[in-house]
Amino acid sequence: MKKADIGMIGLAVMGENLVMNMESKGFQVAAFDIDEKRVSEFEKGRAKGKNISPTYKLEDFVDALEKPRKVMMMIRAGSPVDSVIDQLIPLLDNGDIIIDGGNSNYEDTIRRTKYVEDQGLLFIGSGVSGGEEGALKGPSIMPGGSKKAWSHVEPIFKAIAADVDGDKCCAWIGDNGAGHFVKMVHNGIEYGDIQLITEAYHLMKDLLQLSADEMHEVFKKWNETELDSYLIEITGDILKVKDEDGNPLVDKILDTAGQKGTGKWTAVTALDEGVPLTLITEAVHSRFISSLKEERVKASKQFPKKPRNFIGDKDQFIEEIRKALYAAKIISYAQGYDLMRIAAKTYKWDLNYGEIALIWRGGCIIRSAFLNKIKDAYQQNPKLENMLMDQYFTNTIKDLTDSWRKVIATAVLNGIPTPAMSSALNYFDSYTTENLPANLLQAQRDYFGAHTYERKDKPRGEFFHTNWTGRGGDTSSTTYNS
Amino acid sequence: MKKADIGMIGLAVMGENLVMNMESKGFQVAAFDIDEKRVSEFEKGRAKGKNISPTYKLEDFVDALEKPRKVMMMIRAGSPVDSVIDQLIPLLDNGDIIIDGGNSNYEDTIRRTKYVEDQGLLFIGSGVSGGEEGALKGPSIMPGGSKKAWSHVEPIFKAIAADVDGDKCCAWIGDNGAGHFVKMVHNGIEYGDIQLITEAYHLMKDLLQLSADEMHEVFKKWNETELDSYLIEITGDILKVKDEDGNPLVDKILDTAGQKGTGKWTAVTALDEGVPLTLITEAVHSRFISSLKEERVKASKQFPKKPRNFIGDKDQFIEEIRKALYAAKIISYAQGYDLMRIAAKTYKWDLNYGEIALIWRGGCIIRSAFLNKIKDAYQQNPKLENMLMDQYFTNTIKDLTDSWRKVIATAVLNGIPTPAMSSALNYFDSYTTENLPANLLQAQRDYFGAHTYERKDKPRGEFFHTNWTGRGGDTSSTTYNS
Repeated sequence: MKKADIGMIGLAVMGENLVMNMESKGFQVAAFDIDEKRVSEFEKGRAKGKNISPTYKLEDFVDALEKPRKVMMMIRAGSPVDSVIDQLIPLLDNGDIIIDGGNSNYEDTIRRTKYVEDQGLLFIGSGVSGGEEGALKGPSIMPGGSKKAWSHVEPIFKAIAADVDGDKCCAWIGDNGAGHFVKMVHNGIEYGDIQLITEAYHLMKDLLQLSADEMHEVFKKWNETELDSYLIEITGDILKVKDEDGNPLVDKILDTAGQKGTGKWTAVTALDEGVPLTLITEAVHSRFISSLKEERVKASKQFPKKPRNFIGDKDQFIEEIRKALYAAKIISYAQGYDLMRIAAKTYKWDLNYGEIALIWRGGCIIRSAFLNKIKDAYQQNPKLENMLMDQYFTNTIKDLTDSWRKVIATAVLNGIPTPAMSSALNYFDSYTTENLPANLLQAQRDYFGAHTYERKDKPRGEFFHTNWTGRGGDTSSTTYNS
Repeated sequence: MKKADIGMIGLAVMGENLVMNMESKGFQVAAFDIDEKRVSEFEKGRAKGKNISPTYKLEDFVDALEKPRKVMMMIRAGSPVDSVIDQLIPLLDNGDIIIDGGNSNYEDTIRRTKYVEDQGLLFIGSGVSGGEEGALKGPSIMPGGSKKAWSHVEPIFKAIAADVDGDKCCAWIGDNGAGHFVKMVHNGIEYGDIQLITEAYHLMKDLLQLSADEMHEVFKKWNETELDSYLIEITGDILKVKDEDGNPLVDKILDTAGQKGTGKWTAVTALDEGVPLTLITEAVHSRFISSLKEERVKASKQFPKKPRNFIGDKDQFIEEIRKALYAAKIISYAQGYDLMRIAAKTYKWDLNYGEIALIWRGGCIIRSAFLNKIKDAYQQNPKLENMLMDQYFTNTIKDLTDSWRKVIATAVLNGIPTPAMSSALNYFDSYTTENLPANLLQAQRDYFGAHTYERKDKPRGEFFHTNWTGRGGDTSSTTYNS
């Protein structure tokens, strides 16, 4: 029997669908799961009659693979990945390749790349986006790790990846954890995109009092504008789905959002890297607040909302909401790209920002027409400091700003939360302000902690301390840092 | 010679001032620094003629101490603390006490408490707040760690702590890292308080075009209202200080804020604990943006601000800014207390929230009259879920809401960033909303990832999946988590 081109460990929906995808592109695939029942069900079910070799022992699985072996894992992130790596190492030979396609933390991937390479093997940590459907029909793939492994894996990954206008949504991202880092940022951006859509929905539902059917029409129309994207499209789909009683199903769904993982990681990483990633962070916090359903019910009784009274042209305001959403979305991506730029410095990755936008155009959850604009911006200027400074985005934001401000002011006056849209505007207004009030902040820190300050009329790097009170305290602080 | 009651390692400004404070309260204090010059300067200078024993060798320092020895460190947080602990362990006897008074991370303190206790010694990790002046005249002290050590240290710490109306700003916080945790939250709240003041200042300066002298008067008046606090007071002081050329010194200070540490830790901890700590997080991000001075100068040219045109009664708007500041401040503390409540569950600390407010009333940077209201709230109901639900705060917020909304809407329309005030309002509006739009979010996640959802009309814990598209994908996701 012909040896398999690649093997998959983990036959949950993502792993299974990737196997089916690979097989459909002409590859022979070995499959293994620690749960025997999953293997046998797969063998009798979807794998039947295909070039797939289900195996029940890890040794048989490894033996079924062509050298250099390519072993891909689609299993739960965390300690299971380390455990499987340790089981694989004694079974593999020099130059064999272990691929982690799960949602691993990039720091783990940095560690594992070194660990696996030290054993004479190669390691790829790859982001795979697109959910179950993407896995089956063409995901967006973001591999990083041991560069040497790439030429062996590339033909398979490129074959199964999504295709947009002939471009494959898969490219080598960079050393060690780069692939999983970019995937993490992708997921953070997904949090932001989703949050922005829910805020627009909230405004239309509670302020404009639109029905689900009306909003379905709105999102359908929006999907023909610059907002054209998978998430806008499925929002339109969702809003027209009815429950058994004929009412919109979406209204029956409990408003408590789960989260655990990549969105939060993105927010924490931004704090660690000193990057103002405000929008995604607010999106994560919004999920936290959503989960406090019982507290919110109590608080809503203690602080009853005033009746909302929208005066004005609804259609015009819907268009202004669309513009606010687009403006905030641009900020979210600008912040996400800023995080990648700063992290690339920290970790010495040579990221191709235009290519990353291109990879995200298909297969993955955040796929959108908009990403073409980002690709263009970074292809024109790969060293772009902030996406906002690109001419297209500058002009676009300028066109959107009035509506954006109006929508948020209206939301604020009507008590409808728009945490992501608002934080985006605050970021924009801070980023474009030459003189922020941090001078006062520095004066305070110098006053109470002798932290010293720099001056506008002196070169950077010269530090001054003032005895603000006129009494004592002229030494500068060395241990007390607030 | 009489043995010393306590010893201090680290004679930078905080350590030195704490020694002087202890000595002034009748304690004999041994002093040591790794830098001999610091010891000799101290010996010839401020320590001269005092009950202070400067020592030049760690062995001599330890020998100078009465048993059980109380060794306090005021040194740079991080590895130096571990290093000094390891140098001390062989020199100390069972039951001796090591005290870390620096700004250590609470996770390090949890680890160190166990490590030191395993050596038969006791450990206290203590927050000490108040800057150099507080250290000398009466800081706020937040000790945690080995409970057994407390009775030995309490007389000294209570003697040197700040005193407000006869209450000492020092009390045992809880096991292992509890003291440093509460100090971290204090510092996070300090970030928030400072940020709010700078936003009020920014609005008055750039929208109302007030002079520094006028703002000095405003802050002086505000300090006689509910905002009565150290930070409002020193802001008033700062605004009247003139540079050599007679112009306000604050205008000469560069608007780039430093940060590294406790504010960021607070934000990261909140993300890890799942607590929506939006205001402090925005304050940290604002410092990040402030540090991008060169980028901001460029962006301010690419996106010139429209001329600001404030129409209305300035004095009335100043009062509305004051109300917005107070409302946002309440939210910030509500979020900070929420973080303590959730972390106390995680780490099994029995925190006394009323007492914590009381400790913060004096000595430390965030000291304020306002903390009395928090103390009252938690003394009335130690199990209070959210500060906002206390009757005083409910009534107060209700009085402030209209002004708060008006100020933010005005800022938004005029392009003046108010990230902290805005995020606070968005939190408030989310927290008091019975039905947030997270139902749509859950529908999306179920659509693309088969994540399942709960329903409003079914008991919690029952999960549903819908085949939204009508084609395939009926299995629920187990490995793909977005």
